[in-house]
Amino acid sequence: MEKQGILIVVSGFSGAGKGTIMKELLKRYPDQYALSVSATTRGPRPGEVDGTDYFFRTREQFEEMIAQDELIEYAQYVNNYYGTPKSYVQEQLSKGKDVILEIEIQGALKVKEKFPDTMLLFVSTPSAQILKERLVGRGTEDEATIHARLARAVQESEGIENYDYFVINDELSECVENVHALIRCEHNRVSRNINFINHIREDLSGFSKGE
Amino acid sequence: MEKQGILIVVSGFSGAGKGTIMKELLKRYPDQYALSVSATTRGPRPGEVDGTDYFFRTREQFEEMIAQDELIEYAQYVNNYYGTPKSYVQEQLSKGKDVILEIEIQGALKVKEKFPDTMLLFVSTPSAQILKERLVGRGTEDEATIHARLARAVQESEGIENYDYFVINDELSECVENVHALIRCEHNRVSRNINFINHIREDLSGFSKGE
Repeated sequence: MEKQGILIVVSGFSGAGKGTIMKELLKRYPDQYALSVSATTRGPRPGEVDGTDYFFRTREQFEEMIAQDELIEYAQYVNNYYGTPKSYVQEQLSKGKDVILEIEIQGALKVKEKFPDTMLLFVSTPSAQILKERLVGRGTEDEATIHARLARAVQESEGIENYDYFVINDELSECVENVHALIRCEHNRVSRNINFINHIREDLSGFSKGE
Repeated sequence: MEKQGILIVVSGFSGAGKGTIMKELLKRYPDQYALSVSATTRGPRPGEVDGTDYFFRTREQFEEMIAQDELIEYAQYVNNYYGTPKSYVQEQLSKGKDVILEIEIQGALKVKEKFPDTMLLFVSTPSAQILKERLVGRGTEDEATIHARLARAVQESEGIENYDYFVINDELSECVENVHALIRCEHNRVSRNINFINHIREDLSGFSKGE
């Protein structure tokens, strides 16, 4: 089998627990996975380390990265840029690590367009009711806020038809193993092993001619 | 998650051990899998049971099945018909069983055309050299026969680009678990859970409007 890593984009409903799943995945299988580190123009918060939590960049530096096509994807939120540097991801992939990236669906679909080999995974709660309960939380929010959050959850799933896998986070540990299995399985795809397969076919062809 | 079973077609090089893998899979997970039973016009051999080993049919009956579109695929070998009855497969799938079918690539691609949800899996030895050793066997065959078998192995892999998964049978037990994992993962595909996903979205949408 080939050693190139796979780029995995994880999306999902806010409150479905994708962050926790990814952290747990890295903790359990540190040799297999790498989390993508984002670049941002926002300033570091206390305790955040450059190159670990984020690559902290000035607006000029960030725009230079955009101009040089050095980002897999980027977006602007509240006057700050956030993006995924290509070089870090490619370095990890070529080491054979599977790189996990957490972004919302619209960004994910752009990544898939640029890198069709990307695996897209969506995390959901077992039901809408459970998601509602999590979003409602401790009942400190007013009804309008809750309705807005639920409307946002509907938006968060727009484009999901183009995703590869759908995972339910019911019990965390089970869900982590499920995601791990999905990524391992993805390594068995014919399209990811085509060089190896062609190598076998060439050898067989040679043998059949008595080489 | 949805309960509909998946149709899996297993192909592979002769000598790669697909038959053994499938039998072992059924033995380990009898509640999850069903093997498709073929229909044939050849007569039963001693010990073969109608409905278990094959559905034994007359040529007339078989041609009637073809005319009525009751076969998923069929082919003729040495003056006998062999085919896969649709009804048996659909019955097992609707019970939630994953149905495994062993046919060569050309037949498999026809099945995929008719039933795009079919999962195609190819089994290989770890290398061409190992396949050669298995085909050469005990050295009782002449060189021409061996070359013909190797040439046939090359043919057996034509169209593999259109397959979904590629599995190496190095150690049997490990390979069986790998195939089992691949089929389980396939149940997580977004396309196989779209009704469930739409159900969640409708509920969320209702909640966000205060229903």
